[in-house]
Amino acid sequence: MDEASERTGGREITAGLVVIGDEVLSGRTKDQNIGHIAERLTVEGIDLREVRVVADVEADIVAAVNALRARFTYVFTTGGIGPTHDDITADAVARAFGVGIDVDPRARAMLLDYIAETELNEARLRMARIPHGASLVVNAVSKAPGFRIGNVIVMAGVPRIMQAMLEAVLPELEKGRPMLSRSVTAHAKEGDIAGPLAAIARRFPDAVIGSYPFRDEAGRFGTNLVVRARDEAVLEAAHAAVAAMVAQMSPAA
Amino acid sequence: MDEASERTGGREITAGLVVIGDEVLSGRTKDQNIGHIAERLTVEGIDLREVRVVADVEADIVAAVNALRARFTYVFTTGGIGPTHDDITADAVARAFGVGIDVDPRARAMLLDYIAETELNEARLRMARIPHGASLVVNAVSKAPGFRIGNVIVMAGVPRIMQAMLEAVLPELEKGRPMLSRSVTAHAKEGDIAGPLAAIARRFPDAVIGSYPFRDEAGRFGTNLVVRARDEAVLEAAHAAVAAMVAQMSPAA
Repeated sequence: MDEASERTGGREITAGLVVIGDEVLSGRTKDQNIGHIAERLTVEGIDLREVRVVADVEADIVAAVNALRARFTYVFTTGGIGPTHDDITADAVARAFGVGIDVDPRARAMLLDYIAETELNEARLRMARIPHGASLVVNAVSKAPGFRIGNVIVMAGVPRIMQAMLEAVLPELEKGRPMLSRSVTAHAKEGDIAGPLAAIARRFPDAVIGSYPFRDEAGRFGTNLVVRARDEAVLEAAHAAVAAMVAQMSPAA
Repeated sequence: MDEASERTGGREITAGLVVIGDEVLSGRTKDQNIGHIAERLTVEGIDLREVRVVADVEADIVAAVNALRARFTYVFTTGGIGPTHDDITADAVARAFGVGIDVDPRARAMLLDYIAETELNEARLRMARIPHGASLVVNAVSKAPGFRIGNVIVMAGVPRIMQAMLEAVLPELEKGRPMLSRSVTAHAKEGDIAGPLAAIARRFPDAVIGSYPFRDEAGRFGTNLVVRARDEAVLEAAHAAVAAMVAQMSPAA
């Protein structure tokens, strides 16, 4: 048992993500947070298992947070913690946990670190409303903090701020054994590889083998094969089997 | 009542989207389909209300499809309909509907329109497996079809193919009254606008007003305000109120 799995008792550390915002569902804003969070969590050994994108509607946010926090080690949320009327994430998360919410003196102090007291109007003070019992997540970019309550971590939607919050909170989280991966590029069509690949997948039940077809600039078909496993020996054996299969199918010209 | 709302009895036409694929959850592939589908549906008057990204796990796909098809007019899925062992969407959707699944002669004929019979191996034939009772969705790019069963529309994950399938199926779908939108750029911080903006939002309950802060190249703060409404008169009145508020806050120098 390696250090990470010993630390976590060998169990997998999982996560769900709730992306909050009408602007993503209307197509006005192209989400950049899912990809970033997926990549960072994978590196850290936290398996992102499900993402939900929901509207700025309290009942929808509550339902998504409650569904995912019951299933996964952690739930991250992005969006809806700014100063405007449509920023309702903090209230929705308080509702999901059945706790109250008020202006938090620690969060207020963080805001005053960035703006003058005269600028701290009622709208900006909304950004200091934190559910009872939550700890704060530092925002190195623009101070208004995120927060963590139970296993739910609430972050901003602006990518640069979200990324800073994610880096601030990651050191506090349990990590699993990271998923390792190796890939092989086959200059062959996916449909010609699929049969032998399925046989390899059956031989290595502890590896996950993904197949991603592409066409190169010259219009030739190819397939990227990605082998993933937590155990390095399993990874190497499955990768070798895939590489040998590919070499057999596309011999050097 | 305009033509579209007459056609639909005035009811809103809604949609959910299930993005299927380990590669999105691991961060290996950055999803490009959510943004495209969101934008196209919005233009067509179909409200995308929720997106779920799930892994290549049958139980997860079944749960997501069944949860969303009960709530929305339509459910779209992307991904998992290729020839490899990890392409399990068609089977999962058949399971969700409790129907059988077999190689469909119509789908098989479509494949043979693109590849020679000698190339139609067992793996490629998987792409012709269609749940009983489904109609096919034409794939103008690489022939292997998507399908529609009940209110669920199953599409490929490769963006170019997904887009062709979406265009093929959209003419068959009911459309609602499209959401109209107008935006105003304020050269002011979101926190200074939030108070008056909330008052305008209260005055126009049939409009949705979103607020999106940005910093320009020179590092100056600004806020894009987007007013959305189905009724043109409501849109114009709410937009005028927002524009007047912005003009008052940032008078011409």
